[in-house]
Amino acid sequence: MYRSHHCGALTAIHVGTEVQLAGWVSKIRDKGFVLWVDLRDRYGVTQLVLDEKRTPAELLKVVRSFGRETVIQISGTVLEREAKNPNMPTGEIEVLVKDITVLNTAQTPPFTIEDETDGGEDLRMKYRYLDIRRKPVQKGLLFRSKVALLVRNFLAQHEFVEVETPYLIKSTPEGARDFVVPSRMNEGQFYALPQSPQTFKQLLMVGGMDKYFQLVKCFRDEDLRADRQPEFTQIDCELSFVHQEDIMTCFEGLLSHLLHEVHGIAPKPFPVISYEDAIKTYGNDKPDIRFGMTFCELNDITQNKGFGVFDSQELVVSIAVPGAATWSRKQIDAWIDWVKRPQIGANGLVWVKCNEDGTYKSSVDKFFDSDALATWATACEAKAGDLILVMAGETNKTRTQLSALRMALAEALELRKPNEFAPLWVVDFPLFEQDDESGALHAMHHPFTAPKPEHLDKLETEPTSVVAQAYDLVLNGNEIGGGSIRIHDRPTQEKMLSLLGFSNEEAKTQFGFLMDAFTYGAPPHGGIALGFDRLVAILDGKETIRDYIAFPKNNSGRDVMIDAPAPLDAAQLEELALKVTPKAE
Amino acid sequence: MYRSHHCGALTAIHVGTEVQLAGWVSKIRDKGFVLWVDLRDRYGVTQLVLDEKRTPAELLKVVRSFGRETVIQISGTVLEREAKNPNMPTGEIEVLVKDITVLNTAQTPPFTIEDETDGGEDLRMKYRYLDIRRKPVQKGLLFRSKVALLVRNFLAQHEFVEVETPYLIKSTPEGARDFVVPSRMNEGQFYALPQSPQTFKQLLMVGGMDKYFQLVKCFRDEDLRADRQPEFTQIDCELSFVHQEDIMTCFEGLLSHLLHEVHGIAPKPFPVISYEDAIKTYGNDKPDIRFGMTFCELNDITQNKGFGVFDSQELVVSIAVPGAATWSRKQIDAWIDWVKRPQIGANGLVWVKCNEDGTYKSSVDKFFDSDALATWATACEAKAGDLILVMAGETNKTRTQLSALRMALAEALELRKPNEFAPLWVVDFPLFEQDDESGALHAMHHPFTAPKPEHLDKLETEPTSVVAQAYDLVLNGNEIGGGSIRIHDRPTQEKMLSLLGFSNEEAKTQFGFLMDAFTYGAPPHGGIALGFDRLVAILDGKETIRDYIAFPKNNSGRDVMIDAPAPLDAAQLEELALKVTPKAE
Repeated sequence: MYRSHHCGALTAIHVGTEVQLAGWVSKIRDKGFVLWVDLRDRYGVTQLVLDEKRTPAELLKVVRSFGRETVIQISGTVLEREAKNPNMPTGEIEVLVKDITVLNTAQTPPFTIEDETDGGEDLRMKYRYLDIRRKPVQKGLLFRSKVALLVRNFLAQHEFVEVETPYLIKSTPEGARDFVVPSRMNEGQFYALPQSPQTFKQLLMVGGMDKYFQLVKCFRDEDLRADRQPEFTQIDCELSFVHQEDIMTCFEGLLSHLLHEVHGIAPKPFPVISYEDAIKTYGNDKPDIRFGMTFCELNDITQNKGFGVFDSQELVVSIAVPGAATWSRKQIDAWIDWVKRPQIGANGLVWVKCNEDGTYKSSVDKFFDSDALATWATACEAKAGDLILVMAGETNKTRTQLSALRMALAEALELRKPNEFAPLWVVDFPLFEQDDESGALHAMHHPFTAPKPEHLDKLETEPTSVVAQAYDLVLNGNEIGGGSIRIHDRPTQEKMLSLLGFSNEEAKTQFGFLMDAFTYGAPPHGGIALGFDRLVAILDGKETIRDYIAFPKNNSGRDVMIDAPAPLDAAQLEELALKVTPKAE
Repeated sequence: MYRSHHCGALTAIHVGTEVQLAGWVSKIRDKGFVLWVDLRDRYGVTQLVLDEKRTPAELLKVVRSFGRETVIQISGTVLEREAKNPNMPTGEIEVLVKDITVLNTAQTPPFTIEDETDGGEDLRMKYRYLDIRRKPVQKGLLFRSKVALLVRNFLAQHEFVEVETPYLIKSTPEGARDFVVPSRMNEGQFYALPQSPQTFKQLLMVGGMDKYFQLVKCFRDEDLRADRQPEFTQIDCELSFVHQEDIMTCFEGLLSHLLHEVHGIAPKPFPVISYEDAIKTYGNDKPDIRFGMTFCELNDITQNKGFGVFDSQELVVSIAVPGAATWSRKQIDAWIDWVKRPQIGANGLVWVKCNEDGTYKSSVDKFFDSDALATWATACEAKAGDLILVMAGETNKTRTQLSALRMALAEALELRKPNEFAPLWVVDFPLFEQDDESGALHAMHHPFTAPKPEHLDKLETEPTSVVAQAYDLVLNGNEIGGGSIRIHDRPTQEKMLSLLGFSNEEAKTQFGFLMDAFTYGAPPHGGIALGFDRLVAILDGKETIRDYIAFPKNNSGRDVMIDAPAPLDAAQLEELALKVTPKAE
């Protein structure tokens, strides 16, 4: 035993006790005659004290030689502090040091081990093991562990069984690219790492497991964008003998449980909105509903009134920015410039100030009088003091642009409160997306998603109007989960794959085992998968998933700490019957 | 909602209730005027009843058309059974069917979905989703899920944090071969799948996480033996500021907890035996101590007594087989033949019957009189009625042979009771194994294991006599876990790698990040890893891990259900800058 207590354990009740502690030297304050050392471990910080009167001179000398992050073990007596610190759990006491053993020395770390460090992202990633010593990172990982256990216990209490599905599976083109694994024992053949355990969890339902879950790593070999990782963790679930509503009830229960356990939030029913309404009202299918500024379409009351800019457009749509009527011309122009940037690509903004005195002032006063502007205000429920911003253009583009503006305004106005949580369900997604150019159909969710039963007969005739039994769980503007009722009969699955452009041969090679399984008594089933990295970050009031991953990869998919990936040696390649053949540029 | 209750839920208290059930048609008994259907789901079986008096004729007709495993939903009324079945939870009731919906039809399964099936291993693996419907497999997976949750909750209560370490790491020659993963974004470079999260968990200790655990998949590209899997699950743990005893106490606590929760076994201290004693007493380092037959060395009392067979040998060693004095000559000869088979390779057995009447009868009566044989019996604590079996030969070989005999005898005598659990610790392993031919040193545990501090100075002078701070947890003759205190300073780690034949360059490339980390204040630390697949099987009184893995691979590393691994298409290979180049024979 290196220690009798952790560094976060000692309080006034321990005064007089002889203790052993171990940890890292976090800070030394040297007043000459007295010396304080902050000793840190995962559990807290304990103040050690040494002074000329009570401590042997050589011990003082030893301590003065310590660099930061030296690892020590001490024994001593718990004393009541003269100057108590009510802000730390151990703030009532300090430990008078009797003996010290140095357990390990430490080079000066390349950045400070503080909440706010001087280390940049790259340096912190290279020395991630030091970065993890910092409280914010450590707390993030502890929080993740806590949430994982809450999830598992909740699901276990609801009769879910955790089943581990295999990692070495078969490559199937399921959206993104697979990572593959050459098989030494089967020359020229490859496993693939799962993008999700989708087919396996469906087979578990065919196998009668009834309710399955797994916290599972998934892999996608995609060109990485900021905050995407090639490996990520999913709460993966599947249930038998359920309708869409049963699954939504169950996982609304899970998220409510987490919000209650983590933040003490009392459960209340989640709003449910259709995909179509989400697009119409928020311009996207993962709306942040912590704030208003919902879209209001103004075509009827703004077109054919002599303002050509509106007349020629497919959509005229507005939002009311709360309390922004007082903005200066300069402030408004800044936002106009913001939407005109190529990243957004809008033509501009029409604005209307709804002044506190009931008057209106707009950028289109030449074309619309006060009465006209008042009808706008009524339509978009703008109150006195609000600023109405209007965009016009092609429907889909304009909605996307206004959605970006809405989110940026909310950010600027601090309406995206990290300690507020607004979950909702988005339902009734189209079954297919259609490629604008080729006309090819893609599965909006995945090829195993069932259409609404009443739309089955439109599958071939009007595929793009078929609505799926699919649902997304959205939290604070992030899709944290998505799922669907699955197809569970062979003919429908065959038709679906054929519509998606699979030949019979391809369908059989890639999904034959699943379609076979459907013929042996597959129960109706459906499921959901929640992105665990993101869920944890958002539950903790953050958005950057990297802070909740112990050893993340950078945007090139590299682990800069261990320096992976790396070349293989020739013998290893030969054993795998592989040769690296550089691609032509 | 497809159902109001599960098929295992209804009892006498539900009599009179209208219910909906869903599940698989497991059995139909047709008495003509009355028809019983066993409806099965994960939770149980409920008997449905239909008869000519109370059921519409067309419903009877429909049910008579059902094949086994048809998926149906029914509604009906719970009735008290006339002939109750006390052996099943729902045995007091049956459900009079009012309405039936067929949810899915089923082809006749290729084997019977019964506890004892007619399906062979290969067929069951190809249709694993049907195999999983069988109670024994389903129960195995449910048991695994339960044990996993017990483990997690126990460790969380003991302040362990579950941290997910990455799966895409770097290839390092750590015993077995790595599976590798080509990186598309980093041409010609490869990730490796972890054989264990060893270095990452040590870095988490450097990072101050203090107590880490993870239930984690590990990967080894080994030539598979029976009951080995290329991917397997490990309970992986690491602790800081601990000595060997602290870790042993902690994980003795975990296993005691599991034995108590699962089997109601009251905890008692685990025996601790040194590696040397284990080899001397049981002939191997993972002894099954549910039964005796411990080794007794007889050199002193058997050699130089005129029996040449013993005199020339390095070791004369015996076991006392309980109650086997009554064996016939033929029975004994069968065992002599057994040890002479090439798989064991012994020369034979000398036997001594310790008769109930106090006399002795042996195969060496010509050389040893009763008084001499009595000293043998005393030495190996053979009681009246026991049979002493003696082997002689080269020490290591003979021990291995006698160990195999001991286990086979225990099996035959049914001394390896599946419901009895005998855990123990084996400690004081040598740090190194030495290759007989090349003289090269290999790490017995792994290259990160610390020697006993008092042996540090023998590292270079007498490496093979250095004892490691390593320990194995053994249960019923299986090594279920192993761990060690780790080296936590750079100089010792460098020396260790150099002794293992790493050049400075190799050491730096492969483990530089770890040795760097040791210079920034690494705490003393150690850990353990338990093989979860095997632990679960043994806890359930079985030895075959495949029954506790949802989708296992066969001995060629193939998943015969999904048919993986498989060739990649040319485009995929090109994107990875790879070419398959068949190996020369």
